[in-house]
Amino acid sequence: MNEAARFAPSAEATADIGGEIHALVSRLFPICRSITGEGVRRTLAILSEHVDVAVREVPSGTRVFDWTVPQEWNVRAASIRDASGKAVVDIAASNLHLVGYSEPVARRMPLSELRTHIHTLPDQPEVIPYRTSYYSRDWGFCMAHREYLALDDGDYDVVIDTTFSDGSLTYGEVFLPGETDREVLLSAHICHPSLANDNCSGLAVLAFLARALAGRRRRFGYRFLFAPGTIGALCWLAANEERLSRIDHGLVVSCIGDGGGPVYKRSRRGDATIDRVMEAIRCDGRKIAMIDFSPFGYDERQFCSPGFDLPVGLLQRSAFGTFPEYHTSADDLDFVRPEHLASSFRMIMDIIEVIETDRIPLNLSPKGEPQLGKRGLYATTGGHKTTPDVTMAYLWVLNLADGRHSLLDIACRSGLPFSAIAAAATRLEACGLVGDAQA
Amino acid sequence: MNEAARFAPSAEATADIGGEIHALVSRLFPICRSITGEGVRRTLAILSEHVDVAVREVPSGTRVFDWTVPQEWNVRAASIRDASGKAVVDIAASNLHLVGYSEPVARRMPLSELRTHIHTLPDQPEVIPYRTSYYSRDWGFCMAHREYLALDDGDYDVVIDTTFSDGSLTYGEVFLPGETDREVLLSAHICHPSLANDNCSGLAVLAFLARALAGRRRRFGYRFLFAPGTIGALCWLAANEERLSRIDHGLVVSCIGDGGGPVYKRSRRGDATIDRVMEAIRCDGRKIAMIDFSPFGYDERQFCSPGFDLPVGLLQRSAFGTFPEYHTSADDLDFVRPEHLASSFRMIMDIIEVIETDRIPLNLSPKGEPQLGKRGLYATTGGHKTTPDVTMAYLWVLNLADGRHSLLDIACRSGLPFSAIAAAATRLEACGLVGDAQA
Amino acid sequence: MNEAARFAPSAEATADIGGEIHALVSRLFPICRSITGEGVRRTLAILSEHVDVAVREVPSGTRVFDWTVPQEWNVRAASIRDASGKAVVDIAASNLHLVGYSEPVARRMPLSELRTHIHTLPDQPEVIPYRTSYYSRDWGFCMAHREYLALDDGDYDVVIDTTFSDGSLTYGEVFLPGETDREVLLSAHICHPSLANDNCSGLAVLAFLARALAGRRRRFGYRFLFAPGTIGALCWLAANEERLSRIDHGLVVSCIGDGGGPVYKRSRRGDATIDRVMEAIRCDGRKIAMIDFSPFGYDERQFCSPGFDLPVGLLQRSAFGTFPEYHTSADDLDFVRPEHLASSFRMIMDIIEVIETDRIPLNLSPKGEPQLGKRGLYATTGGHKTTPDVTMAYLWVLNLADGRHSLLDIACRSGLPFSAIAAAATRLEACGLVGDAQA
Repeated sequence: MNEAARFAPSAEATADIGGEIHALVSRLFPICRSITGEGVRRTLAILSEHVDVAVREVPSGTRVFDWTVPQEWNVRAASIRDASGKAVVDIAASNLHLVGYSEPVARRMPLSELRTHIHTLPDQPEVIPYRTSYYSRDWGFCMAHREYLALDDGDYDVVIDTTFSDGSLTYGEVFLPGETDREVLLSAHICHPSLANDNCSGLAVLAFLARALAGRRRRFGYRFLFAPGTIGALCWLAANEERLSRIDHGLVVSCIGDGGGPVYKRSRRGDATIDRVMEAIRCDGRKIAMIDFSPFGYDERQFCSPGFDLPVGLLQRSAFGTFPEYHTSADDLDFVRPEHLASSFRMIMDIIEVIETDRIPLNLSPKGEPQLGKRGLYATTGGHKTTPDVTMAYLWVLNLADGRHSLLDIACRSGLPFSAIAAAATRLEACGLVGDAQA
Repeated sequence: MNEAARFAPSAEATADIGGEIHALVSRLFPICRSITGEGVRRTLAILSEHVDVAVREVPSGTRVFDWTVPQEWNVRAASIRDASGKAVVDIAASNLHLVGYSEPVARRMPLSELRTHIHTLPDQPEVIPYRTSYYSRDWGFCMAHREYLALDDGDYDVVIDTTFSDGSLTYGEVFLPGETDREVLLSAHICHPSLANDNCSGLAVLAFLARALAGRRRRFGYRFLFAPGTIGALCWLAANEERLSRIDHGLVVSCIGDGGGPVYKRSRRGDATIDRVMEAIRCDGRKIAMIDFSPFGYDERQFCSPGFDLPVGLLQRSAFGTFPEYHTSADDLDFVRPEHLASSFRMIMDIIEVIETDRIPLNLSPKGEPQLGKRGLYATTGGHKTTPDVTMAYLWVLNLADGRHSLLDIACRSGLPFSAIAAAATRLEACGLVGDAQA
Repeated sequence: MNEAARFAPSAEATADIGGEIHALVSRLFPICRSITGEGVRRTLAILSEHVDVAVREVPSGTRVFDWTVPQEWNVRAASIRDASGKAVVDIAASNLHLVGYSEPVARRMPLSELRTHIHTLPDQPEVIPYRTSYYSRDWGFCMAHREYLALDDGDYDVVIDTTFSDGSLTYGEVFLPGETDREVLLSAHICHPSLANDNCSGLAVLAFLARALAGRRRRFGYRFLFAPGTIGALCWLAANEERLSRIDHGLVVSCIGDGGGPVYKRSRRGDATIDRVMEAIRCDGRKIAMIDFSPFGYDERQFCSPGFDLPVGLLQRSAFGTFPEYHTSADDLDFVRPEHLASSFRMIMDIIEVIETDRIPLNLSPKGEPQLGKRGLYATTGGHKTTPDVTMAYLWVLNLADGRHSLLDIACRSGLPFSAIAAAATRLEACGLVGDAQA
């Protein structure tokens, strides 16, 4: 069967996939998530409407490598009220207002004391920052600096109605088995509250990708991971340690719905196949910006730790920390756009197409160029100043199909997109000029 | 014998070699060439006045790898006349007017029909383009777009008096044997009609090079090939398949008479000796611009196909397709200049000098620098701010002559021209400071 | 014992080391040095006040590889007087006035003859150039071009009261043994007369470094060489040939007191450890500019000759030949500044710290990141846009501490200074997260 044809644009890719993904982002956005608790479970429940998510629960207190699963944290209410009883901050307005994992508080205090628990961004006075205190017992509120400056002196009633309890950490996993036992890992963190790009976008795009892949033949198995950052990824790694050697390629996906980038951060190895795939694909016709691995970011930090060193990179539109909306209330439903979500969806589908269809072609007529014209693959009139890319793709495949270059190698060396090289190889195979070096 | 001295500037190089080459270009220019026919034979006959050309004839219909030698095509006349009998296009004015390999026509037709057979360049309305249709039966005319727009409505008498016949494809070969059985290939395509730079220039420069080399000692054998593009090169490859392994270095030479560049396109291997030679020589004191191999261009496409993968690059002044005169009637005898032809001749002689004289020197006094001053190789007064290149060449040769670096290696690492490094090595050998690592 | 702590800033580094070094430069500056003679001995005597210098004498006429130690040259007086007896040039004013190794002269001569022995810099008319004629018997004076132009016609009395005698070449050596038999070579040329940067600065900085290192534990032995350029270095190489294999790292130090650079010229090997060390250290927070080896400069020419090929680079502030004061009377005590001398001293101490403390760390918790927060190594509040360098250093060490990367490797790959990486490793070791891969 023709490999390339298996991954031709599907109904999913051509319909209003961007609108559908954005609708899912919009449903996930309001949920108050953290690294444990009901927010994660509600999120996984919504994702389960699209794909068959296996929900895993890891009990509080479980030792995971150097870590311990923390107690489950849930929020009922959180507010600051002034002396008149008016709420100056209320989590009902934005769940960014409460520092993640804040301990319960119910106390009146003067502004001077309250201030030591308030986080703002003086340089961005209109937006609420996002802060957490997962592993150090504390409490706090986040608010717009402009509103913070407007607080009157006096006493405030602080209520943080949160619970810590022995429960569990929750993560979700979708596995689509392939024809071989080799696997591709696609991971998105699920622990952030109302931040649309970081990472409702990643969750939603991966859910639609899983749905799209479910109905196709797959050489590789695909493992989708929706887990809380760091501790969730570590739980999954601990539970799957003996099968990690099956993972040939992986991507962490976050901040995938804005209009920047795309930017790809290479795996720790730096020359993994996934790293080279990213050079050979295009997003809306543009090359992907590449940056080297560094041990900071999302869960590639865990996957690429020296004890695992998996071939996993990080794919984003705008790189984390580089856009002003990052980790603020400005990372909202307007910041992520259907067209960017659709473009990211297509880009990852193209990545998967490379992974699925890469092969080593063999030129069956390697002495000189074969006569392409008589096969309808070459202009009949000669003398033009330039050569179409489609012709160049034929010539590159023929020139490098010596049994030592894969289609991916040929794409990287030629500078042409993998899709153009793969299409040329398929056409040349149909003409009998190229075969399979591994056959 | 001193290797460098063997290639000191010869009488050819110092006389008006540019004028002589241009005169040969001028004789070749008017001939109506194609991939077969009398034009190629007349061209080879003129080249034979300068060097001993072996003329090869390959019968029409011969299978050559994936190709078949086409019928021989000859032209007697070709014109378009208006109703009054006035020739609006006539091959007598320029043999670019006729599309190469046009089939015979003798028919009156309206302008509307004629138009579908006319090729022009709307962006360059004053010049005639060059077009061919070798492998697809068709006919056509090329003309200046300005004249095309001036054609009146009405009927035209089209006469194309061409013949297709079982004959042969013709190519020429000059072989100058060397002291060893290793060979250098120098190839220029002979199939283009009246285009001075592309490639009367290549034919003429190679003819003079062959004449200049004929009278010298040669470590390598030199094989000059004057063959029609693609099919001619393939004929030669097929006839010489068993001896291709003798070829250590090769150059395809085209567009070598204009004032641009020079530009060198690397071999498919990318790190062949010829590729490194081009970094170490200079043309009129300037470095050669380098571009990577791509499987489009001239007959390096065939020599570098995966079944042969010969160490052959492409040497040009302006790269094909990049200058406005390319494949138009503006590529005429004014576009190629004697000074550029002479400079290209010297450049290729310098390339050959590197190939002939490269060797691995051995510093016989490797502990510390030897005292160059007492041998007259160093300034007697010390303290100057800068060091002359000639001194730097001595120091580089001494420093790298450890038996692991050739003169070419030393030139590339030092950034000095090979000629300077070779001269320094020769002088150091004369002083007994350097010997031959291979002796 | 903690390696990093051994090289914590010492009293030397924090006191007014710059002022002390500049005071030593000021004492060395007026001495009339050459490649032999009393000037070198007086210089070594002053250096001996700071460190225990072993003074070596190599008799005139000794064969040293391709060279012969020249006769000892000493100067009593040198002047040019006009007809009125007025000194127009006198070595008492500047010992640059006399060309080094000038032969004795006592003769009246017309200006026309005198002119052929006068060296000036027309482009820098106010300064006296520095010139030598070590190995070719000659004599000459150097003077400011402006004064040269003001010379009246007429006769002049030239007196050069110099002596050539069988004596010796003198060099000094300081050796501080280490715990192992591996050695570090630090070399500064001692043959230049009154040039403050080139190289009173190098001599003085190395003397203070030797003094600072003398009181510390040292893994490596440190060999400081104060030798005349070329012939002095060759004498040392000849005398130490059998022990050169002990040298793991080396630096030639010159022009180390001005405000430019720093610039490091790599060793001939190009990838020696010392070459990589220079990428990982900082000078006043800035990276060191790197240039490739070339066989011209100071005594790295001898150390890096192919018969020795030692891992020795050249460290400077402004690179020789690139600053207008180079080899002129403008290279004076104002051109070198205490703050630059102190900065250079600290930079070389930092280099030595890398050499002494580099090691291969091993992450003892390699599966995922260990939990840094519970060890006080990570911010307790999460969500910030940027990460402090100190955190990045922990993460880089942990990520690359797989037993295949040294601290130096980690510094180079991370782009962080070695000092930051080493401090992070030390802290992680204290926490039990990192051990020694070689233990």
